[in-house]
Amino acid sequence: MAVYTHVDPDDLAALVSRYDIGTVLSCKGIAEGVENSNFLLETTGGRFILTLYEKRVQVGDLPFFVDLLDHLAGRDCPIPAMVHDRDGVAIQEIAGRAACVIQFLSGISPSHPTPGQCEAVGAALGAMHRAAAGFPGGRENSMGHRHWRAVADATGDLDAVISGLQDIVETELAFLDANWPEGLPAHVIHADLFPDNVLMLGETVTGLIDFYFAASDFRAYDLAVTHASWTFSDDGSRCDADRAHALMRGYAREIALTEAEIAALPLLARGASLRFLLTRAHDWVHTPADALVTRKDPAPFLNRLRRYQAGDAASLFTAP
Amino acid sequence: MAVYTHVDPDDLAALVSRYDIGTVLSCKGIAEGVENSNFLLETTGGRFILTLYEKRVQVGDLPFFVDLLDHLAGRDCPIPAMVHDRDGVAIQEIAGRAACVIQFLSGISPSHPTPGQCEAVGAALGAMHRAAAGFPGGRENSMGHRHWRAVADATGDLDAVISGLQDIVETELAFLDANWPEGLPAHVIHADLFPDNVLMLGETVTGLIDFYFAASDFRAYDLAVTHASWTFSDDGSRCDADRAHALMRGYAREIALTEAEIAALPLLARGASLRFLLTRAHDWVHTPADALVTRKDPAPFLNRLRRYQAGDAASLFTAP
Repeated sequence: MAVYTHVDPDDLAALVSRYDIGTVLSCKGIAEGVENSNFLLETTGGRFILTLYEKRVQVGDLPFFVDLLDHLAGRDCPIPAMVHDRDGVAIQEIAGRAACVIQFLSGISPSHPTPGQCEAVGAALGAMHRAAAGFPGGRENSMGHRHWRAVADATGDLDAVISGLQDIVETELAFLDANWPEGLPAHVIHADLFPDNVLMLGETVTGLIDFYFAASDFRAYDLAVTHASWTFSDDGSRCDADRAHALMRGYAREIALTEAEIAALPLLARGASLRFLLTRAHDWVHTPADALVTRKDPAPFLNRLRRYQAGDAASLFTAP
Repeated sequence: MAVYTHVDPDDLAALVSRYDIGTVLSCKGIAEGVENSNFLLETTGGRFILTLYEKRVQVGDLPFFVDLLDHLAGRDCPIPAMVHDRDGVAIQEIAGRAACVIQFLSGISPSHPTPGQCEAVGAALGAMHRAAAGFPGGRENSMGHRHWRAVADATGDLDAVISGLQDIVETELAFLDANWPEGLPAHVIHADLFPDNVLMLGETVTGLIDFYFAASDFRAYDLAVTHASWTFSDDGSRCDADRAHALMRGYAREIALTEAEIAALPLLARGASLRFLLTRAHDWVHTPADALVTRKDPAPFLNRLRRYQAGDAASLFTAP
């Protein structure tokens, strides 16, 4: 749930006047994105998302995100382009914050994806990877596997979150450190393609959004994150093979994974599960219980980790 | 800031299918309204607000609000009508809550109204009163002057909010009880027409919204609430005579106030100031300081009360 910065109507009119998008008709704060303020902006020229960057996004990273979205949107991916003003500038300032006007895309995020929706998102992810492979920019993945131990340390007493979690995390971190693959195909990936970050109409993907965790990493890790977030029951205890296979089938339409990638997928999915287990545990400990922001339960990602640790996990990554 | 109930896309599609408004294209939670969940819903048939009623609105009151908005919207007031489904039903259920689909109106709420905007909102309020006078429904004003003592009592120690407030409130309640007028023209009023609840494009009123405090009371009290909320500096210490006179001039274009109403306006404005002073003090005490909801400072309404208590307050209610 976003925290909203108030935007003065006069400041908004001044900002919009820099663009060729007409005049303001409406502007409503929306509950979208993590720790940015987002507004659905309507002008006589169309509809847009106005994003004000709050603490989580580093202003220094914004040119990277602008270039990335420009690159992807220009390659027929359903990705919202940043709108540039008459002088070609995409990163503006309003209400003391960096801000961008972004293309509006229709669609709704699925709550309980069907196999058909999983196949579609697999294909959209693959198409996005084909486009991203040619993107010249790069960015350290600050939520990547080399940083998980630091997240665990910053959380404090993991056993206070879930009994026995400290030992489980230590063992898993040691295993992943010893076995993390090297040399797999890598480029800028989304790294957070949960259903929340996908807009769909029926079984058509109309938008991949919220690229603010995008960073350089293995493309197969991006697929593992998507697998972990699209194919499980809400409590994370059960992976739905139909959805999992559909996701892999869709991805395979666009990308032929190497043997090394296929072999690594169960391990990468263990890593993806650990990543969200740790960041959720961290936020669980550091978010006051009575704050209106919803704390996300870490336990479903411990359940996913266990599922991916099982001997038959490779069967979840086939595309029959 | 609203609390959001999650709406499942399948449930939303089922709800929308009851109406003649096409199929869903987009649905985004918006930060509007007090303690309801509001969504900006786009369908192939247009744009709408979907409101889910949370704890503050009594479900039993909903038919009153539906009838009121139908009545007003049908009389050329810029007021969003409730949309009725194919069976004529306006009050639906989704996600376990009563819900309505409401017409979308363009416009933005002014942050710092100009005299021209104050004149326009005065005229819009007057026109709404002309329409409301013929509305047959009625509703007890649970935030009206007979209930202010109960709000004060429920707040607890007023001096903990503002030093000396307990005595100020006691004295003012006694004064208002002794002097509150009787027999002024009354009908259903908005009762909360702050700038937040008005949509404008430039100096044109495009929407009067959020009627969930609407109740039967003096029309001049509604004007007093609007006066108190549109014509003061942010800290409530200064009433801008230009804006105040413009508001009165706009209202006078639609409604000729009686002598008794004109004489009562300073006292009614004292009442309006006390009402918001008390409800803000109440919420200040009863909202945790670290909750993400913004607590509104009661002090600016104490300042307004003092301004309206001054001997020359009647001069703020002329329409030169």
